[in-house]
Amino acid sequence: MTDALNSIFKANSVAIIGASNDPSKRGNQAIRKLRADGYGGAIFPINPKADEIMGLPAYASVLDVEGAIDLVLVCTPAKTLPAILAHCGQKGIPGAVVLAAGFSEIGAEGAEIAAATLAAARKHNVRLVGPNTNGVFNLHNRMNLVGVQDVEPGAIGICSQSGNMMLGLVTEARRRGGVGFSSYVGVGNQLDVNLAEYLRYFGDDDDTGVPLFYVEGFQDGRAFLDTCREVTQKKPVVIYKSGRTEAGQAAASSHTGSLASSFALTRGLLRQAGATVVEQSDKILSIAEGLSKMPVPAGGRVAILADGGGHATVTVDALVDSGVELARLSAATTSRLRALLPAAASCVNPVDVAGGTDNDPSVAAACAAAILADEGVDILMVVGMYGGFAARFNPALLDNEIDTSQRLARLAGEYGKPLLVQSVYAALRTRPIETLKQAGIPVFVWPEPAVRCVCELIGYARARRRNATAPLVLPDGPIAEGLEILGTIRSEGRIAFYEHEAKALLAVYGARVPGEFLAHSEDDLAGAAERLGDGPVAMKIVSRDILHKSDAGGVRLNVAGEAAMRAAFAEIMANTRAHDADADLHGVLVAPMAQPGVEIIIGVVHDPMFGPVMMFGLGGIFVEVLKDVSFRALPMSRADAHEMVCEIRAAGILDGVRGALPVNRDALVDLMMTVAHLALAHPEIAEIDLNPVILRADGYDIADARMILGREDRSRDQAPRPASC
Amino acid sequence: MTDALNSIFKANSVAIIGASNDPSKRGNQAIRKLRADGYGGAIFPINPKADEIMGLPAYASVLDVEGAIDLVLVCTPAKTLPAILAHCGQKGIPGAVVLAAGFSEIGAEGAEIAAATLAAARKHNVRLVGPNTNGVFNLHNRMNLVGVQDVEPGAIGICSQSGNMMLGLVTEARRRGGVGFSSYVGVGNQLDVNLAEYLRYFGDDDDTGVPLFYVEGFQDGRAFLDTCREVTQKKPVVIYKSGRTEAGQAAASSHTGSLASSFALTRGLLRQAGATVVEQSDKILSIAEGLSKMPVPAGGRVAILADGGGHATVTVDALVDSGVELARLSAATTSRLRALLPAAASCVNPVDVAGGTDNDPSVAAACAAAILADEGVDILMVVGMYGGFAARFNPALLDNEIDTSQRLARLAGEYGKPLLVQSVYAALRTRPIETLKQAGIPVFVWPEPAVRCVCELIGYARARRRNATAPLVLPDGPIAEGLEILGTIRSEGRIAFYEHEAKALLAVYGARVPGEFLAHSEDDLAGAAERLGDGPVAMKIVSRDILHKSDAGGVRLNVAGEAAMRAAFAEIMANTRAHDADADLHGVLVAPMAQPGVEIIIGVVHDPMFGPVMMFGLGGIFVEVLKDVSFRALPMSRADAHEMVCEIRAAGILDGVRGALPVNRDALVDLMMTVAHLALAHPEIAEIDLNPVILRADGYDIADARMILGREDRSRDQAPRPASC
Repeated sequence: MTDALNSIFKANSVAIIGASNDPSKRGNQAIRKLRADGYGGAIFPINPKADEIMGLPAYASVLDVEGAIDLVLVCTPAKTLPAILAHCGQKGIPGAVVLAAGFSEIGAEGAEIAAATLAAARKHNVRLVGPNTNGVFNLHNRMNLVGVQDVEPGAIGICSQSGNMMLGLVTEARRRGGVGFSSYVGVGNQLDVNLAEYLRYFGDDDDTGVPLFYVEGFQDGRAFLDTCREVTQKKPVVIYKSGRTEAGQAAASSHTGSLASSFALTRGLLRQAGATVVEQSDKILSIAEGLSKMPVPAGGRVAILADGGGHATVTVDALVDSGVELARLSAATTSRLRALLPAAASCVNPVDVAGGTDNDPSVAAACAAAILADEGVDILMVVGMYGGFAARFNPALLDNEIDTSQRLARLAGEYGKPLLVQSVYAALRTRPIETLKQAGIPVFVWPEPAVRCVCELIGYARARRRNATAPLVLPDGPIAEGLEILGTIRSEGRIAFYEHEAKALLAVYGARVPGEFLAHSEDDLAGAAERLGDGPVAMKIVSRDILHKSDAGGVRLNVAGEAAMRAAFAEIMANTRAHDADADLHGVLVAPMAQPGVEIIIGVVHDPMFGPVMMFGLGGIFVEVLKDVSFRALPMSRADAHEMVCEIRAAGILDGVRGALPVNRDALVDLMMTVAHLALAHPEIAEIDLNPVILRADGYDIADARMILGREDRSRDQAPRPASC
Repeated sequence: MTDALNSIFKANSVAIIGASNDPSKRGNQAIRKLRADGYGGAIFPINPKADEIMGLPAYASVLDVEGAIDLVLVCTPAKTLPAILAHCGQKGIPGAVVLAAGFSEIGAEGAEIAAATLAAARKHNVRLVGPNTNGVFNLHNRMNLVGVQDVEPGAIGICSQSGNMMLGLVTEARRRGGVGFSSYVGVGNQLDVNLAEYLRYFGDDDDTGVPLFYVEGFQDGRAFLDTCREVTQKKPVVIYKSGRTEAGQAAASSHTGSLASSFALTRGLLRQAGATVVEQSDKILSIAEGLSKMPVPAGGRVAILADGGGHATVTVDALVDSGVELARLSAATTSRLRALLPAAASCVNPVDVAGGTDNDPSVAAACAAAILADEGVDILMVVGMYGGFAARFNPALLDNEIDTSQRLARLAGEYGKPLLVQSVYAALRTRPIETLKQAGIPVFVWPEPAVRCVCELIGYARARRRNATAPLVLPDGPIAEGLEILGTIRSEGRIAFYEHEAKALLAVYGARVPGEFLAHSEDDLAGAAERLGDGPVAMKIVSRDILHKSDAGGVRLNVAGEAAMRAAFAEIMANTRAHDADADLHGVLVAPMAQPGVEIIIGVVHDPMFGPVMMFGLGGIFVEVLKDVSFRALPMSRADAHEMVCEIRAAGILDGVRGALPVNRDALVDLMMTVAHLALAHPEIAEIDLNPVILRADGYDIADARMILGREDRSRDQAPRPASC
């Protein structure tokens, strides 16, 4: 697959189907642009009605060309595609970029053409980019089939579902300067090649330092995640996902289901796969640039070197707001700085030179050297007015300042630590600023975007380490006792588990479940105390026909003593009978009341795009009102589960509030991994909801559990496996 | 006061003290810049050692100048100030801008000079800008005493505690184009003139459409709030507050106190006063620009006119994320659009022209006219590629496109509705883009900053309406029964109220408090049922020596029946005695258990900067862990109280969860206003904490209340009154 994409992006020869002498046509513009840029390969105009196009011999068909053709750019209408692809196949052309619209996006007629086109592509072994794309470019190959002007070559590879977004990024880059692009592909309708395949290409492409994806929707999310996990071991992957506010899944029968269509799910899964998810379009480029230029830091401790003023304060605010750790400079570093700077300078982090660089900018480089040498520093931010010393104070400082820019870049390289600059003068693109950029130092106008970039760099480093060291816990096959439980449910024609069945299945996979029992009559309650201990019990109706037990009067809590239990049994049966005269009442589940603790929810759903996905959150209002939940794809690592727990906003509650002890996070993670194992071993279970689980310092109680089989059981054979690891 | 600032900013004559022929000196640069810019007033160089400076006659002292002097720029060192100010006073000069550093910021010696300088300024009736400022400019007066180059005149007036931040804004403006500044003042040490006075000046200045403040800390926050409330009735005030992450107040004895130092407090109070609080420095300028160029919208319904691609999606995402309402176009508007656009176009909001403007950009203006005419639309955003039609498709479209830009601006004016443009081509500053800017239409490169600007515009409109229509509820004097309760506490040498005293005081001011009583012995419990009703009771120790009642074993909840109450009484007394053998045990408070509901906290503290401030939040973990609280200054309006309630993240919980009815928000607001009244009537009460109050559909129960007197009682005479309203 990557071979075909390699042929497309690195084509040594391009045929332009629908080549034209009319300068308003794409079949003319493409040739003009290739020649203007000095494309080194062969160009074959294809047009049965012309002998010559722009001075090049024209051919009636690719079959008439003598040499090999790596790529065709198809500028002709949709309906011409099947025949063209047949020719391409005959000629052995591996790839085609198809500009035409008029496929599935225009309805039934177009869908028919799309089907015929895809069938032809498959039959003739031609990979298609698009259709309905504005093209591809590879600036390192001087091949620009999009026609966008004045794009600097560089390390960012763009894959976009919107041509306008690419244009926005390229235009922004031109304004910023010092940031360029390797390749671009507009994916169009993704009739053939999908996002995961493009990601694989960019991952393997040595010219691309950072693949940057603008995504409106995934067609095969799981493959994308698997590829992303691999690629991010080599390079950062930056993703902006739009279309975040679509209406939720219409009919979901569990809390997990109703929340699982949220942007939080996509973001959680992409981050799990190591991607850098940017949430504001105006930050996409600066984050991609920063990640492409800086090394992966060893840790997350940030030092600040400021030349006075408000920018240091704003930077510290933004770092602290984002939870970034400020480096503590060693005593040795502080004394080195003291020797370099005036008495009024601050020689702890944030360092403020207090005018100490005004007359000699090179002092900034000396300070940076001292700070970068400190083992307690992972990242250095230079903030304030750097690059404006000559402009502000004395033009005679210019050479000194340009030299300082070069020294700063060299120092970053020598220490292998990320160094970035925020400067008021960045907007003016002074020569010292431009020197920094050309030497590969990212430069920002305002502090917050610089801090955002630092956060994403730290996040990438952490995710890469996590995915390299924490193995995904792959499912064993299903356990026989588990299959028996499912067999019973199926044999009774149910899809919903009874609560005690769900808990029993959890127990099979190792979860601690309460010592509950099912009472079919009041007499079954005799001796309950011996079985469950002395405390009060919870009693709940068990019925295939009653989904909302409380609403039906089918729940009694804190019932103490056999007499009260008998009364509660009678009451529950009477209530539920009154609620639904025809309900099949299977019995009443009797379980010890859970000890007080923190209520949480653990759920699993099968996302149509991403496959099995776990959700974690605090229970009750936190999930229902605040939607404070986190998501990961299954299988996941224990580290993933730990991060899910840390990621929710209210995670502090797990550390104990109002005198409570912290909950046992290891036991919680054990339970999450058990649920993950169960879900993967039984993919035919469509939804799992443990809600609530009561967490305490000494463990947990699963107070309620629900599971539902898919309407058509999923086959275990379709259970996703990671592509690697 | 404003007269003196008027003289400073609009000076008809400037004396430069420390004028110099040395071009590296400020006393030279200032004169050079005034002359280069064509300053129309008189310039008087003051230097006892020179006869002539830059061709102008030099004077030994301002006293030697014959004409009137409106302003002196003092370029000489700190220690020269007292003598200079005496001369200024003699000469009747109303204002001085003092550049020198070396005052309080350098320690005791400087503080002495500062005190002498301030004394001289007051004695001689000279108002001081600075010291330690980089100066002032008023571009409409062609008076630039800062020296910053290439600043376009315009509507934004900057007041900043950091010269660098001003430089950042000015530099950014130069890069964006089409945005300019009226005046700037670097406030320096604020030895004399403070932020509130500068705000008053900018509020009155007709050249300033938007005062923009960069604030590190307020010296007289209450005066600033009062001025801000007035000024925002005339024009928006944009504020960026840095230094947000300082450590909280060291020792606070209440929840309200411990949270009251947060940035949330400052933000809440500034927004209450009508200010636009920007939280990211890279958004300051675009928000100020947008607010300065657009009219105040009548409502918050936003329509989008897009020319295809991802930008409409990104815009809708960002609007929905920010809670902005998307306009519903009328059927008439939709048919007007249908008549203008191709069949594939979307003619509901967001409108997508689907290529319908590619060959004729003027269609965009026709569409905009149709949308602006719709009474259901308050604001129009044009998003995508506008301004690039000629560049992208056909240079022959340029005139059409420039004309369209002018028409768009005219349309916005005719309908009096805000119109803003987001375009990929904004970064390239094409002629149609520059035409938009010159015609006063804000233009953005990326959707999110445009949406941020729209949100702030809607927020400003709402705040202005609120402050115009919802009166602050001013305190009546204290009620006699309240003074009696305070008298008792003082007479016993206490500063802490007993819980029942706090509740009694609340009852005096109209709060509903539980029918509780104080039991001094077990026998007092006889007949408790008749007094409190049949339900279980809560029993709590009352002791001046026991602050944390639960920790001391001094609380028993859900006590039912006289026998149990007697046992609980004995237990509480024994526990607390064991906890603190010397404690003065005043009795046990017996109150009916609160019915279940939503726990909230209402608190009041006296902030050192802002005076009395109310805090509202959900109780328990929401305030302790999530710090999900809102703040308003007192006095406040009922509308303020309602907004406080809506503003917390978890406000949805008040609408009823898990089958609960919504709480009675009116009763809640009544209680908040009662507490506000009490706090203002008794400013000697330093802290008030109602924690928790249990809210229900049928009202509330104040389950606990604490009040503490100030160590030195505040005098009622110092109670803040609003400057107006």
